[in-house]
Amino acid sequence: MPSYKAPVADTMFILNEIVGLERLTNNPGFASATSDIVQAILEEGGKFASEVLSPLNAVGDQIGCKRNDDGTVTTPPGFQEAFDQFVAGGWTTLHAPEEYGGQGLPIVLAIAAEEYFTASNHGFNMYHGLTGAAVSAILAKGDDTLKQKYVPNMVSGQWCGTMNLTEPHCGTDLGLIKTRAQPQDDGSYKITGTKIFISAGEHSMAENIIHLVLAKTPGAPAGSKGISLFLVPKMMVNDDGSLGAHNAVTCGSIEHKMGIHGNATCVMNYDDATGWMIGEENKGLAAMFIMMNQARLGVGLQGLAQGELAYQQAVHYAMDRRQGRALTGAAEPDKPADTLFVHPDVRRMLMECKALTEGLRALVLWGALQVDLIKYAPTEEERQAADDIISLLTPVIKGYGTDKGFDVAVLAQQVFGGHGYIREWGVEQAVRDARITMIYEGTNGVQAMDLVGRKLPANGGRAVRALFKMVAQDVAAGKAVPETAAIAEALEKANQQLQAATMWLMQNAMQNPNNAGAAAYAYMHITGIVATGMMWLRMAMAAQAQLNAGTGNPDYMKAKLVTARYFAERIMPEAGALRRKIEGGAEVLMELPPEAFLTAA
Amino acid sequence: MPSYKAPVADTMFILNEIVGLERLTNNPGFASATSDIVQAILEEGGKFASEVLSPLNAVGDQIGCKRNDDGTVTTPPGFQEAFDQFVAGGWTTLHAPEEYGGQGLPIVLAIAAEEYFTASNHGFNMYHGLTGAAVSAILAKGDDTLKQKYVPNMVSGQWCGTMNLTEPHCGTDLGLIKTRAQPQDDGSYKITGTKIFISAGEHSMAENIIHLVLAKTPGAPAGSKGISLFLVPKMMVNDDGSLGAHNAVTCGSIEHKMGIHGNATCVMNYDDATGWMIGEENKGLAAMFIMMNQARLGVGLQGLAQGELAYQQAVHYAMDRRQGRALTGAAEPDKPADTLFVHPDVRRMLMECKALTEGLRALVLWGALQVDLIKYAPTEEERQAADDIISLLTPVIKGYGTDKGFDVAVLAQQVFGGHGYIREWGVEQAVRDARITMIYEGTNGVQAMDLVGRKLPANGGRAVRALFKMVAQDVAAGKAVPETAAIAEALEKANQQLQAATMWLMQNAMQNPNNAGAAAYAYMHITGIVATGMMWLRMAMAAQAQLNAGTGNPDYMKAKLVTARYFAERIMPEAGALRRKIEGGAEVLMELPPEAFLTAA
Repeated sequence: MPSYKAPVADTMFILNEIVGLERLTNNPGFASATSDIVQAILEEGGKFASEVLSPLNAVGDQIGCKRNDDGTVTTPPGFQEAFDQFVAGGWTTLHAPEEYGGQGLPIVLAIAAEEYFTASNHGFNMYHGLTGAAVSAILAKGDDTLKQKYVPNMVSGQWCGTMNLTEPHCGTDLGLIKTRAQPQDDGSYKITGTKIFISAGEHSMAENIIHLVLAKTPGAPAGSKGISLFLVPKMMVNDDGSLGAHNAVTCGSIEHKMGIHGNATCVMNYDDATGWMIGEENKGLAAMFIMMNQARLGVGLQGLAQGELAYQQAVHYAMDRRQGRALTGAAEPDKPADTLFVHPDVRRMLMECKALTEGLRALVLWGALQVDLIKYAPTEEERQAADDIISLLTPVIKGYGTDKGFDVAVLAQQVFGGHGYIREWGVEQAVRDARITMIYEGTNGVQAMDLVGRKLPANGGRAVRALFKMVAQDVAAGKAVPETAAIAEALEKANQQLQAATMWLMQNAMQNPNNAGAAAYAYMHITGIVATGMMWLRMAMAAQAQLNAGTGNPDYMKAKLVTARYFAERIMPEAGALRRKIEGGAEVLMELPPEAFLTAA
Repeated sequence: MPSYKAPVADTMFILNEIVGLERLTNNPGFASATSDIVQAILEEGGKFASEVLSPLNAVGDQIGCKRNDDGTVTTPPGFQEAFDQFVAGGWTTLHAPEEYGGQGLPIVLAIAAEEYFTASNHGFNMYHGLTGAAVSAILAKGDDTLKQKYVPNMVSGQWCGTMNLTEPHCGTDLGLIKTRAQPQDDGSYKITGTKIFISAGEHSMAENIIHLVLAKTPGAPAGSKGISLFLVPKMMVNDDGSLGAHNAVTCGSIEHKMGIHGNATCVMNYDDATGWMIGEENKGLAAMFIMMNQARLGVGLQGLAQGELAYQQAVHYAMDRRQGRALTGAAEPDKPADTLFVHPDVRRMLMECKALTEGLRALVLWGALQVDLIKYAPTEEERQAADDIISLLTPVIKGYGTDKGFDVAVLAQQVFGGHGYIREWGVEQAVRDARITMIYEGTNGVQAMDLVGRKLPANGGRAVRALFKMVAQDVAAGKAVPETAAIAEALEKANQQLQAATMWLMQNAMQNPNNAGAAAYAYMHITGIVATGMMWLRMAMAAQAQLNAGTGNPDYMKAKLVTARYFAERIMPEAGALRRKIEGGAEVLMELPPEAFLTAA
């Protein structure tokens, strides 16, 4: 089975045609991100992913991590060496600000490279995975001392960052947390409590681990309005920057999980550990959400990345495996059987994988562009528009993106038949690894509620109206080109379903909030179909334009057009069924008492 | 977490109201299956499942099987003792003919009990799982010597049976098999070849293992027309019934799999092993299909069973876990938070699980009834009708049933949030175990092709026309009852989608067979929705009748009505989207060359 291969050409097509990187180089922040430089970086990143990280993926899964009796964690063989190379290659610095040692490149580029790292080795990539998000939270809310003391080493990759939210009795409902922070005379706090499910909570790949921890100060208001955010280093940091004693934070155990075995998921015990508050007291959740939103975009990417990994394996298998004959007569009569590619149902699975992964790649990168534009766009109006649209679409990218990433991995596994179920081929690992993305950083149900309860109604629905307008403009443009007219019409229909669903919510959610809850998941999926469909129409138009102009690889451009048609014919129709589900309302969901769900005696 | 609990009350409701067991006791074969006897048997089976098999489920997963250097296989701790109890309890004999030591009970009853065994321990139940199907093949095609020599001990559970089809280079395309059978002077054959993915291929829980093996005789025609079926015992059987020498069949290795770790999936090496032909030379595939059709019904059941197991766990978790508040205001203000049951999106997941598992349970049992009616129905017309409908629906029960069983397990896992991803709660095992059901006994894509390519056009479409008529009659009856009218109308709409899809196939599949292949999967799912929807309408009407009559448990009957409404409002609408996918045709699937699927450089 060939190693994972980074889809650099597809990333570049999206960056050039959908993100429009070349058009942006006049904006500060994009100046150094010319197409040539970006391509060179991505090719180097892709090489590292396939040559260094990919061979360690099965190792991480099969050997996993071990917590030793002294509380240290042994990571899978080869991970330390790969991590050293990863850091030495500067891969942790791409997007970080130059004043802290970063390269100051757009986040869209960092996200593009991140896909390759996470696809080739999800468990590995999580060791440094949350550091960038932790840095963002510290830079946005932390004081100068914290910034100067911690950020440069986090940017360089010498230290890693983690996110400590969940406790045994609470995950989604963070208002219930029990971890306490006792103020000390020197301005620090003593943190005490237990956090669970902490990805990369303990390891020795980096010299230090900077934990960002939610806790409550004495007398803090009950619920989520009384939560503060703290920085708690594993190793104390002296004023000269050298490392001091081990802080009172230890790994109590590591979880046995369905997948991502390469990463240590830790129970972290804080026992009067020393920490410092980040931002204002009782405003910890807002600070954490800076981190969380960035992480959610990243998790959407992880879903697509595991899908891509599984899909690549399925394509190779379908090319090599000969079984049965084409329904229209033997394709290769001199061979004992035709390849799996002659079978329409195998192609259905592969086309579904292709349409979803390429579509989601465009959506994630276009989403990351919006994050850059919030900062770099020339006018306030453009910055606001970027903020609106990515606020709306972050839960969609996370929720729809990971649901579909998992579906893709399961479909790719199905292409293998029985061979997909055994460890040997590696595709079952992708399914297990992909599964976590639907759960962590807020389950996909929580994403749906965030979309419908917060993001949709914000500013009187300004963001979704902007989306409708954007789609309508694309549809009009797409209809004007004969080769893309049918795709544009399918998108128009899906958008009508989204509009109808939005209208239904406006009319029914106020009178009964449960109607919003009951509609949320289907609404998130319709939005995902429309947003990904919009990407496909744009890609189809760009491909057709290149065909007309005689630029680019014509086979690649034709494949884009066919795959866009697949999305239009085979995926967009789902929007109608989802809209009908919404219109059933909450009643049928809420009617039964909980006891009615128990197995009857 | 409470142990698995067999849903005996639900099974009994289905057996009484949908299968109509009481109405059938005049038929030979059903005479001894009175409702009281059946309930007593099921309660005993349910007890065995929860008390003996369920505690061994995690053991089987975590310890798994080991092939020893001498070729023997060590099964998980406790499995041998449980197997002995299983056999002593007579659980292998339920459906087997009385002349071979069986109890001669209807297969619908055996299938009902089988659900509990496979839900509580999928890996365990597979050790004896294929024995009944092997017995059916021997009884249908074997000569008297084979029947007398092998069947009684297989019925009693002293010996197990296996199914040996797949080879390293072929699974679906059995025409490619290379295993050879050399005729001997005494009428036996020497079998040589390698078979893979053999469930329970080697173990020492039973005294002997009777392998049913596909192989080719010298000079046999190429392809699937040259395959014969052989009986190859692990231990030779002397004429007095005692066991002789070890036959030349050995386990070469066992697979490392995603799930069902409790079962030994073996590579079996045949090296001039002695075997006997079952049925006619070159007619082995037909003989194997007797076995396969029975097994496919059983696999559909396995899908639903793993779904049920996961769903039960999710219900308990949702009752205990408190997180957040009801959108309509705190449900239990004195508690720190409300239970997960207040959240509409959690209820969406649980209702989806409930609607699918209960609906599929009815469909599988009603399907098993048809198998009984082929044998026992009083008129030739009824026997033919039963054969028609179950031939049509076997691939649907296998394909739709296992797709949805897996979906249910994944949804139930999602209810747990992060806790669903760790081993501790057991639900992730159900997801991994359920995944195989979509693959083995013919992948679900193969089921879809069987439905569209073979079952649908057979006898000029007689079976599907009978289904349409059956649904139309139910719809008319359902509309006449005010409480079920809306459900009947939703079923009518779904049935119209199925009719439209059937019409599309008639008009488009002849001119281009790829259109049939491209439509097959979606067609299988629409058929699954309609067939399961028909079950829900029948259950709703039966529940309403009991409510009107004041019989039965009114809470249970009301829950049936609400769950039927859920199926109508939230699942049936999918039929429309599936029909639209079909109408896209094969073109978009077949257009790209295989190279276009490779990652572009």
